[in-house]
Amino acid sequence: MRHVLVLGASGFIGRQCVSSLLLRENVTVHGVSRITPGWIDKANMRLEWHELNVLDMQAVQRLIFMIRPAYALHLAWYVGHGAIWTTPENLDWVAATLGILRSLVSAGCKRIAVAGSCAEYVGSGIFREDETVDPETLYGKAKMCSRILAEALCRKEEVSLVWPRLFHMYGPRENSKRLVAGLILSIIRNEPFPCSDGRQLRDFLHVEDVASALVQLLFSPIEGVINIGSGSPIALADLLLLTARQMNAEHLVQIGARPRAINDPDVLLPDITRQTRELRWVPRLTVDDGIKDTVQWWNQHRV
Amino acid sequence: MRHVLVLGASGFIGRQCVSSLLLRENVTVHGVSRITPGWIDKANMRLEWHELNVLDMQAVQRLIFMIRPAYALHLAWYVGHGAIWTTPENLDWVAATLGILRSLVSAGCKRIAVAGSCAEYVGSGIFREDETVDPETLYGKAKMCSRILAEALCRKEEVSLVWPRLFHMYGPRENSKRLVAGLILSIIRNEPFPCSDGRQLRDFLHVEDVASALVQLLFSPIEGVINIGSGSPIALADLLLLTARQMNAEHLVQIGARPRAINDPDVLLPDITRQTRELRWVPRLTVDDGIKDTVQWWNQHRV
Repeated sequence: MRHVLVLGASGFIGRQCVSSLLLRENVTVHGVSRITPGWIDKANMRLEWHELNVLDMQAVQRLIFMIRPAYALHLAWYVGHGAIWTTPENLDWVAATLGILRSLVSAGCKRIAVAGSCAEYVGSGIFREDETVDPETLYGKAKMCSRILAEALCRKEEVSLVWPRLFHMYGPRENSKRLVAGLILSIIRNEPFPCSDGRQLRDFLHVEDVASALVQLLFSPIEGVINIGSGSPIALADLLLLTARQMNAEHLVQIGARPRAINDPDVLLPDITRQTRELRWVPRLTVDDGIKDTVQWWNQHRV
Repeated sequence: MRHVLVLGASGFIGRQCVSSLLLRENVTVHGVSRITPGWIDKANMRLEWHELNVLDMQAVQRLIFMIRPAYALHLAWYVGHGAIWTTPENLDWVAATLGILRSLVSAGCKRIAVAGSCAEYVGSGIFREDETVDPETLYGKAKMCSRILAEALCRKEEVSLVWPRLFHMYGPRENSKRLVAGLILSIIRNEPFPCSDGRQLRDFLHVEDVASALVQLLFSPIEGVINIGSGSPIALADLLLLTARQMNAEHLVQIGARPRAINDPDVLLPDITRQTRELRWVPRLTVDDGIKDTVQWWNQHRV
């Protein structure tokens, strides 16, 4: 039985990772989160839930030494759309991440995946993993520093570390302040959705695909930084119009009604050569199918 | 009254900083260390000692919110010669440093100095503060990441931060495993002192001068990285022979008897233009006088 610790297990990505892990044989999942969500199947003997604050380093350390997981997937970070770029709380999450890594390594964990971010890159472009990164935002710096120290620690202690850099995503239970969820909820309320020029090129993955990639990655021998993406760039305006069209509400999308945010690059895309050649992973859902699934979920779960 | 918090106050540099601070008027020093050293003058109403483990983040937070210092000088880090380059404990000190900074900023501290290191530079050279740094050692990476996040936090929260990069030093109470103290103790025991070719150029400051620079810096408006150094490069062999000569024991110094350590650069020197032009600080002691003082101290305190 492979014991997998998932930190941030009740989150947008975490929940899907737990589901994806439970589809595998010989895996016991130890989910860690500040809350115990209602969706947990308490009858599933292969899922153990540990309710604790990941920022409580002593509690996390105790838990890790109790479980002594062979695998760990660390997804926990500050949640709060918008504020994440600048909040000083990013430093608490760096400290927590370093504490988690120290405990995992000391407790004998031999394979660790930590969620990186496209925010580690800077400027406009199609980014390769070996690009020199010098991010401007506090969030980007926090992820970058976490990675530098995680890599140095794991190299020294001969622990296998992989650092998936996640790009854009959408799907069920997304924070309603984020792009796709925000649009769908606006349309459901029959409200206009003002947005920028929408010419920004981005890479969007359905969160189920993100989780599928992360789980496949965790059980692979791949180490270091790896971009995770769909490989199908889309302009934001096209994504919004595609979504609205599925809801027969194109008229509510007001392209160009707002200025772009500062530091919102024209192009922010992953080079997914590593994902394709080494991980050999491809997404299951097209953006059409993924958005369809998401719209359906929100229609069923509208508040 | 200016309340100054000194973290790592019982250490090699910390102790001298406490003394140097107490020479100033209108300063109350709050020393923090895991131990309460014997040298503390308990009758001095301007020195308060707080015995706690700086890695205990909750205790540090409580203390900082109790004192609410206007100034903070953070010198605490892993102590252990040699192992410091690679020990995973460097990550604990990054986490502690981030926690300390978060608490200081939240508690209203407006001026912070954190000890940086020449280990943040890489390779051989005379280094300027704006040099791009990408250190190879875990210690260097830990200091670099601490600095990146400290600068980002303090910029966001409008707190004045200065990051003195310390180079080489010597003086009373130095760790006996370090170069100058090691040599003096060998000579006192009448034992030979095998060393490398000794052609490495370094910048050495007496620890009293280091402390004097740090205290002047803390009360200055200088922000960002600043190299601290003597400006008088010396070859290691010359420093060792100079020391031995003062003890009439040149014959015990065995130049070239050992290979150089890996990654021991030919030149590791600070460009001290900022120190000279902006801080306008100059060391009090020449290397001759500094070594004389140190030899005298060890002669009086030999075990």
